[in-house]
Amino acid sequence: MGNNFGKLFKITTWGESHGGNIGVIVDGCPPLLEIHEEEIQLELDRRRPGQSAITTQRKEKDRVVITSGIFEGKTLGTPIAMMVSNTDARPEAYSEMKEKYRPSHADFTYDSKYGFRNHEGGGRSSARETIGRVAAGAIAKKILTQKGVSISTYVTQIHDIEMPPVNDLPSMEAVEANPVRCPNPEIASEMENRILEVRSDGDSVGGAITCRIQNVPVGLGEPVFDRLEADLAKAMLSLPAVKGFEIGSGFSGTKMKGSEHNDLYVKKGDKIGTLTNFSGGVQGGISNGEEIYFKVAFKPTATILQPQQTVSKDGEETVIIGRGRHDPCVVPRAVPIVEAMASLVLVDHWMRFEAQKNTF
Amino acid sequence: MGNNFGKLFKITTWGESHGGNIGVIVDGCPPLLEIHEEEIQLELDRRRPGQSAITTQRKEKDRVVITSGIFEGKTLGTPIAMMVSNTDARPEAYSEMKEKYRPSHADFTYDSKYGFRNHEGGGRSSARETIGRVAAGAIAKKILTQKGVSISTYVTQIHDIEMPPVNDLPSMEAVEANPVRCPNPEIASEMENRILEVRSDGDSVGGAITCRIQNVPVGLGEPVFDRLEADLAKAMLSLPAVKGFEIGSGFSGTKMKGSEHNDLYVKKGDKIGTLTNFSGGVQGGISNGEEIYFKVAFKPTATILQPQQTVSKDGEETVIIGRGRHDPCVVPRAVPIVEAMASLVLVDHWMRFEAQKNTF
Amino acid sequence: MGNNFGKLFKITTWGESHGGNIGVIVDGCPPLLEIHEEEIQLELDRRRPGQSAITTQRKEKDRVVITSGIFEGKTLGTPIAMMVSNTDARPEAYSEMKEKYRPSHADFTYDSKYGFRNHEGGGRSSARETIGRVAAGAIAKKILTQKGVSISTYVTQIHDIEMPPVNDLPSMEAVEANPVRCPNPEIASEMENRILEVRSDGDSVGGAITCRIQNVPVGLGEPVFDRLEADLAKAMLSLPAVKGFEIGSGFSGTKMKGSEHNDLYVKKGDKIGTLTNFSGGVQGGISNGEEIYFKVAFKPTATILQPQQTVSKDGEETVIIGRGRHDPCVVPRAVPIVEAMASLVLVDHWMRFEAQKNTF
Amino acid sequence: MGNNFGKLFKITTWGESHGGNIGVIVDGCPPLLEIHEEEIQLELDRRRPGQSAITTQRKEKDRVVITSGIFEGKTLGTPIAMMVSNTDARPEAYSEMKEKYRPSHADFTYDSKYGFRNHEGGGRSSARETIGRVAAGAIAKKILTQKGVSISTYVTQIHDIEMPPVNDLPSMEAVEANPVRCPNPEIASEMENRILEVRSDGDSVGGAITCRIQNVPVGLGEPVFDRLEADLAKAMLSLPAVKGFEIGSGFSGTKMKGSEHNDLYVKKGDKIGTLTNFSGGVQGGISNGEEIYFKVAFKPTATILQPQQTVSKDGEETVIIGRGRHDPCVVPRAVPIVEAMASLVLVDHWMRFEAQKNTF
Repeated sequence: MGNNFGKLFKITTWGESHGGNIGVIVDGCPPLLEIHEEEIQLELDRRRPGQSAITTQRKEKDRVVITSGIFEGKTLGTPIAMMVSNTDARPEAYSEMKEKYRPSHADFTYDSKYGFRNHEGGGRSSARETIGRVAAGAIAKKILTQKGVSISTYVTQIHDIEMPPVNDLPSMEAVEANPVRCPNPEIASEMENRILEVRSDGDSVGGAITCRIQNVPVGLGEPVFDRLEADLAKAMLSLPAVKGFEIGSGFSGTKMKGSEHNDLYVKKGDKIGTLTNFSGGVQGGISNGEEIYFKVAFKPTATILQPQQTVSKDGEETVIIGRGRHDPCVVPRAVPIVEAMASLVLVDHWMRFEAQKNTF
Repeated sequence: MGNNFGKLFKITTWGESHGGNIGVIVDGCPPLLEIHEEEIQLELDRRRPGQSAITTQRKEKDRVVITSGIFEGKTLGTPIAMMVSNTDARPEAYSEMKEKYRPSHADFTYDSKYGFRNHEGGGRSSARETIGRVAAGAIAKKILTQKGVSISTYVTQIHDIEMPPVNDLPSMEAVEANPVRCPNPEIASEMENRILEVRSDGDSVGGAITCRIQNVPVGLGEPVFDRLEADLAKAMLSLPAVKGFEIGSGFSGTKMKGSEHNDLYVKKGDKIGTLTNFSGGVQGGISNGEEIYFKVAFKPTATILQPQQTVSKDGEETVIIGRGRHDPCVVPRAVPIVEAMASLVLVDHWMRFEAQKNTF
Repeated sequence: MGNNFGKLFKITTWGESHGGNIGVIVDGCPPLLEIHEEEIQLELDRRRPGQSAITTQRKEKDRVVITSGIFEGKTLGTPIAMMVSNTDARPEAYSEMKEKYRPSHADFTYDSKYGFRNHEGGGRSSARETIGRVAAGAIAKKILTQKGVSISTYVTQIHDIEMPPVNDLPSMEAVEANPVRCPNPEIASEMENRILEVRSDGDSVGGAITCRIQNVPVGLGEPVFDRLEADLAKAMLSLPAVKGFEIGSGFSGTKMKGSEHNDLYVKKGDKIGTLTNFSGGVQGGISNGEEIYFKVAFKPTATILQPQQTVSKDGEETVIIGRGRHDPCVVPRAVPIVEAMASLVLVDHWMRFEAQKNTF
Repeated sequence: MGNNFGKLFKITTWGESHGGNIGVIVDGCPPLLEIHEEEIQLELDRRRPGQSAITTQRKEKDRVVITSGIFEGKTLGTPIAMMVSNTDARPEAYSEMKEKYRPSHADFTYDSKYGFRNHEGGGRSSARETIGRVAAGAIAKKILTQKGVSISTYVTQIHDIEMPPVNDLPSMEAVEANPVRCPNPEIASEMENRILEVRSDGDSVGGAITCRIQNVPVGLGEPVFDRLEADLAKAMLSLPAVKGFEIGSGFSGTKMKGSEHNDLYVKKGDKIGTLTNFSGGVQGGISNGEEIYFKVAFKPTATILQPQQTVSKDGEETVIIGRGRHDPCVVPRAVPIVEAMASLVLVDHWMRFEAQKNTF
């Protein structure tokens, strides 16, 4: 259960990390959207392992194949099925995992919940599952782009190195200019060094990603349970390794007074806007036309190349030694994933908005 | 849309803040649960305004009436309808709101989304909507209690005053011992003074609530999109004034290395547990039997008794002056609301777990 | 579970037959729809018991009260809560039901499923539950009317008396002209006599209702699982006493050849239409602009005033004698219920259509 | 939209009729179920074209490939992805369909709804879409079999030839003994001749399928909207060419009196059962332990090899001549499809029942 996301623009992902294939079905996509395999591939390439020295050296090409829902370069309005083959599976690298629970991985919880698991990799808890999200998100992002929405997602923190805030929305070029995906080149360089450093220790680090979205119309998000920020929070916390989410002022807003935090309304040309934006672009769960921005916290990668104490499936205390190829820091590769999930939430809410607004 | 929450233990809330009544339907509650109006009322009284000097002086009795689904003191398995009348509505106190948008409230976004709003109060965006959640949550909490689960929810921060962590789960008595709902009496007293201070300035403050849950069985939470932490995050971000959520190590985990953050497996009697608990009781989205703990960030109350710049419905810049009764800090009253939402998420996932596990 | 209906225009009903109240929440209704309590009451009065000599003599006034979601005569876009009080409950009339299972009622299945039931009436299986559907359906019907759709629902069969088909859509006046709700006066009179006849025997009869909908735009209905006819079938089979559903040629179509049954396309002015309409206005699950028509089969009322063999709760064979007030034939009163459910399905699909069509 | 079915045992189908592949995702399947590709293939072979002289001569092998969710012969509890390649696509056979609307097909409604369609076959409205349902249904059926449930589905009518009712549940062997799938050999032979006859005229016929299910426990089905019969009706009307559904006495029940139709309760050993079973095994939407039986009406196949009047995409009246390979009667091949859908509904409701029953 729980392999669906979205109400109207609905995705279903499938596939085990080291099974033959991994994929996604997108149901509800509007028809007549022009979309090419290359546009989807572009986002998958940003997510792909082995893209730089700081990511895992697994050589997955992650080549997307579209098997339904797109005809003559346009969406049909029917389910879009996309699939990626796994060309670099090495189940033997995981033989130790069959018996021993890797710390802070999902081996133990899957085994306990289902009484059984695919021990050749992380199963559904593997980050490979996010391939489907990125492919679906690429379609959602294309829709947003056509509607004039701008999204910029970038790394603002690696370990204790933080990037100072910037006013202008960083361009895709600035974000992609370095392997860390931090648009501040000096900070990016520091971050890269930190990652290389922990990697040489067989260790890992966490960090944070900021996502900023401009030109969202007023009115997206449903009152009460399906607030825009609630669905964004769910989207982000559904990603592997995410431990926190904040929108607008977030946790720092807890230390402010109302007189400081309230966003005063002002005229912005013929529109109504706010002087400050501690709300993060949502009020009462509904977009107010200001920039939507939020931050996502990632814990350090659980896979480390050091011996760690653990317990075996049979309940014996033992030691496990991480092997194989891994990411010393997942944060740079998570940038397109965060962007994909945000795009999915926005398109879904846009459709909900249209349904209730336009109909009568 | 969006007035439903939960997949199997599903609630639907209804009612405007200053309409005649407010209520909730609980669909999917198991039959034969003994539950009495007083148990529900108890939680509503914790949420109720006017309960102490630091909350709004509105005198809502918030008396719950159960109109279906419970028969001879036991649940029938059919929808439970609960309702609270509004005995202290003063729509005239809101006349200014008809024309002017209150900063950081939802007046503007509702008007823009729907082309119309109930200006006699905050409509659905009002905190009064949470009455239904607390009533439904009281039933969920009763179920959890009967299954041996312990929940403790308390205020750990008001403005910049923070309570140091404690190991033992604070008792309900300790939490309810003071109006701030902080189980550390000295810190609670400081917090209370801070609230009274900002209140005398006609200002407001934010803060944070910690929720801790023990004795949850291994296996609750669905892989991928409906991870336990994802549904908890959605539940919390669906609450008015919430700007952030973190589980386990949360944002501080971003500054740790994998070797520090990984929770090593150890034997705990005949069970498997972890030495540390930076994961916050979930791994791969599934409960691992350790304590589930998370923190929720609340911004300062938007209603303040100071003149603020704003724009009117007709697009004219103007000034609005908060009037009437308000909470200088919503955080203490939000404690039972956070607890209710957490209980709803857990019971829903417990039922999902049973459905997939026991059936075959 | 299962007390929700609809995806975007979503209703939740609550209430036991002889509990204090019964009601419905409508979530997702578009804002700014003008709707008055009287318009809803009008439909409830058509459903109400005691309206004529051939219906049960229970004197329920079924007066609707709207408690949220409508403000100054217009929908707010937020949940509409409606409620009806039960002013004529006589639980004592049901004392025998506490111990003995009424044949072809749901007493036994409820007791077995939940281990418990409200024996003061039929609980959720009572036809009183349909009050909420009719109230919600009145809103949906108003939306359809504003969009130019015409619905006509009427009794075409009582026991073995059948009304011959008519070409023109019978008017509301013609349908309401007699207590049977059959627009053919002669046949209606025969039907009425048949009902009075079985009633004097303490017996009951079944029958069929035809629903016809004109001016539905091309395009409503989703391919595959949520075909328009599939959602209509579900809606109808979810009504008490319904045992069959057929759309277009229905069961008689099974006896035709393709060359007879195919609806040939022709030009109708500047539109494309079909020469015949055996399809019943849907092709591939999607409305094609022709009249949508379907027929619903109702079994005879289970409550009869004759002694019947049965088994008690304790498993003893015994005899039960129906008492009290009952409908010798539910079909005439089911007319507004069928119409309500059809309206709910159409509005829901209209919103889905708008969501996917208009957005991009 | 609308490509999902089920609440807990949830399937999503994808694929166009003449695209490269067609498939299904099953989400929510319990773990540890032993299931082999051959068991799924067996059901697909029953649905496959070209299996006998009376079906279309298209030579699709419809070989299923399982790409996730099953490991070492057992379900993992995670999404099961299954796929079938199309090895016999002849898009050129469909060139006329590009411009002309086939009568009683979905070409026109798809074009109107989406502004676009895949004209190389019937797209999502093609009967090939049911491959995914049959594959998923094979898993559901395995679960039911393990729980002791018996299902028998067979053809009871072809054109105006009807099979008289039988008491005993026909065995799979008896059903599969002839190409018509009618367990009465004489009637089957008549039916076969009728099909061959219409086929030689380039025409087609409809018919009806009966599905009977024994040993279902008391308690499956949710009151009100998700009654067991409502979900079965939706499942059946979601199939291509289905125009009607009846459960228990169905349309013939409309002509009975309550005193004839009521199913009297009796002791059956230590269980409670009913003397007759006009209810068709459900009361109040909940299974009562008696045999569940229902009948599904199929219209004659729309594709016929005769010239038919129609309108082109550009709105010109024209003539279309059916070509290529087609089924003169889809009913025999629909038997495993009806069985699959019934199995999916039952397993979904079984899981819902367990969720609400067992949890507390």
